[in-house]
Amino acid sequence: MGYDFTVYKGSKDGSIQKASTHRDALEKDQVLVRVTHSGVCFTDVHYRHTDMALGHEGAGVVEETGPDVQDLKKGDRVGWGYEHDCCGRCSRCLTGWETFCDERKMYAAADLDQGSFASHAVWREAFLFRIPDAIKNEDAAPLMCGGSTVFNALYVARVRPTARVGIIGVGGLGHLAIQFAAKMGCQVVVFSGSDSKKEEATKLGATEFYATKGMKELKIQSKLDNLIVTTSSQPDWNQYVNVLNPGATISPLSVDSEDFKFPYMALLANGFKVMGSIVSARQVHRDMLDFAAFHGIKPINMTYPMTQEGIQDCLKTLEEGKMRYRGLLIAQ
Amino acid sequence: MGYDFTVYKGSKDGSIQKASTHRDALEKDQVLVRVTHSGVCFTDVHYRHTDMALGHEGAGVVEETGPDVQDLKKGDRVGWGYEHDCCGRCSRCLTGWETFCDERKMYAAADLDQGSFASHAVWREAFLFRIPDAIKNEDAAPLMCGGSTVFNALYVARVRPTARVGIIGVGGLGHLAIQFAAKMGCQVVVFSGSDSKKEEATKLGATEFYATKGMKELKIQSKLDNLIVTTSSQPDWNQYVNVLNPGATISPLSVDSEDFKFPYMALLANGFKVMGSIVSARQVHRDMLDFAAFHGIKPINMTYPMTQEGIQDCLKTLEEGKMRYRGLLIAQ
Repeated sequence: MGYDFTVYKGSKDGSIQKASTHRDALEKDQVLVRVTHSGVCFTDVHYRHTDMALGHEGAGVVEETGPDVQDLKKGDRVGWGYEHDCCGRCSRCLTGWETFCDERKMYAAADLDQGSFASHAVWREAFLFRIPDAIKNEDAAPLMCGGSTVFNALYVARVRPTARVGIIGVGGLGHLAIQFAAKMGCQVVVFSGSDSKKEEATKLGATEFYATKGMKELKIQSKLDNLIVTTSSQPDWNQYVNVLNPGATISPLSVDSEDFKFPYMALLANGFKVMGSIVSARQVHRDMLDFAAFHGIKPINMTYPMTQEGIQDCLKTLEEGKMRYRGLLIAQ
Repeated sequence: MGYDFTVYKGSKDGSIQKASTHRDALEKDQVLVRVTHSGVCFTDVHYRHTDMALGHEGAGVVEETGPDVQDLKKGDRVGWGYEHDCCGRCSRCLTGWETFCDERKMYAAADLDQGSFASHAVWREAFLFRIPDAIKNEDAAPLMCGGSTVFNALYVARVRPTARVGIIGVGGLGHLAIQFAAKMGCQVVVFSGSDSKKEEATKLGATEFYATKGMKELKIQSKLDNLIVTTSSQPDWNQYVNVLNPGATISPLSVDSEDFKFPYMALLANGFKVMGSIVSARQVHRDMLDFAAFHGIKPINMTYPMTQEGIQDCLKTLEEGKMRYRGLLIAQ
């Protein structure tokens, strides 16, 4: 008994390998999901050299439900992201911060034989998100990590509708952050290397756009209350100190092996706040989906087939910096 | 007409110079204060080589009041700290953050001919703090910057009474931070170089004490929710990452010319918050004084006469790291 399904894994040489994963008959609140779509995140590029199933922006349809499943039923559309499980008993779990549970199960750290680059996956109902009617699966998938991460940054920073929100980088995360911040009522000030994404950023809700390449000193209309950093590595923090209001909140989201190196006295003298954050905890994630549904926020996807070749093409586009703006794998 | 009074200034060679400052007849809400005491802060050490009047932890008695003074009268006991003025019209001033006003007047940046190492000073009533009946001038003076700074750090971090609060350093700031955090109901976990201050720290309210010198890895009873850094330079941040709970707030207060260099992925993955802060804005400062009065919080002072020699002795003790715990100058 049980299920065998296809997953796509990383490998030592970075090539994508098709493999099979087995799960026994569903227990407790487990749910078998047939994957329809998966977003592709830069984190997947980081793990393409690791022998593990890739993908953590899943969207699909419920195929089977375990004996303790309460709310989901066959045919329901669901998605999932970075976190698969937590202890449910610790201080973090009890206060809505299960993303910091010591026993959390996260992508690339647990359940390495399952991912969203796959035909199916088995997850706990507790960590699946029902996709709102107004959002298609293809648009939901990239919200499961990319959307979740930028929404959470805005959430933990308690961004106000009256704020001027700076967003560095117009990529998978940035192009969603622009939409969320704009729909929250904020003035959205975008920083990008060149002018090449200006038109699209403006359509998404950017109210100001600055091409920063080669600029020594940033000059903008007026200072910012929030700064969301979505580039794949950290910016030159010295440049941004002068465009931030006192008390501004800085939300770095880049995955970067370097230290966080920030002008120290400027941090103190201006009362800046630096807020570390990862993906949303579950209730914030639900709020994110509802907010996206209500406001018609969706990713701009470049699509690829969910095959070895399709995944490899997609990762290549991403690594070359040519993705506009989120890679999406479609089940064949 | 007007007033001539004594101030003590820094000088190129670091010696303290006695000088005279003149102020015309009081205008608007100006108040002439006779200085009875001044605290001595490490910032004064930084400016002893500058040709400016030193001191920014003043306590004294009102001698004269200007035509627009509303609440103070001759004989009232008052103190003042780092900030002397602000515009009163900008977004920061209107929201209780006048410490970040672009036109703020701060110690060492404005009014360089006046300080609290002096016989008198003239300040705006709006920037003087009435000293509560329960606090003597000698105990009030060090609260005007040291107390204000640590209280503000706890305030902007929104420290909870149930929190485990780490305090690095038992000096002018640290010995006050211990008392404030203890009276807020917190568990107070103190880190100091050696055990030499353990007994006093415990009396002040520390519930745990760790001597860190030579320690490679910190091991403490359980992790911390807040970390207040009061040492004169930044700690080895790598050491402290492992003793902080996810979501912990870090409040660096050291004056340090180095960059803030913190393990970046740890910052994100643990959702740490780094809160830059300076002295309290005025209402927070008033709350601090009331809280100190209510709970009997006061500095432990080493006293020196308000003379050239007294100031020089005091600064020497401070620079040698021998101050236990705040230097206090007493008017002769």
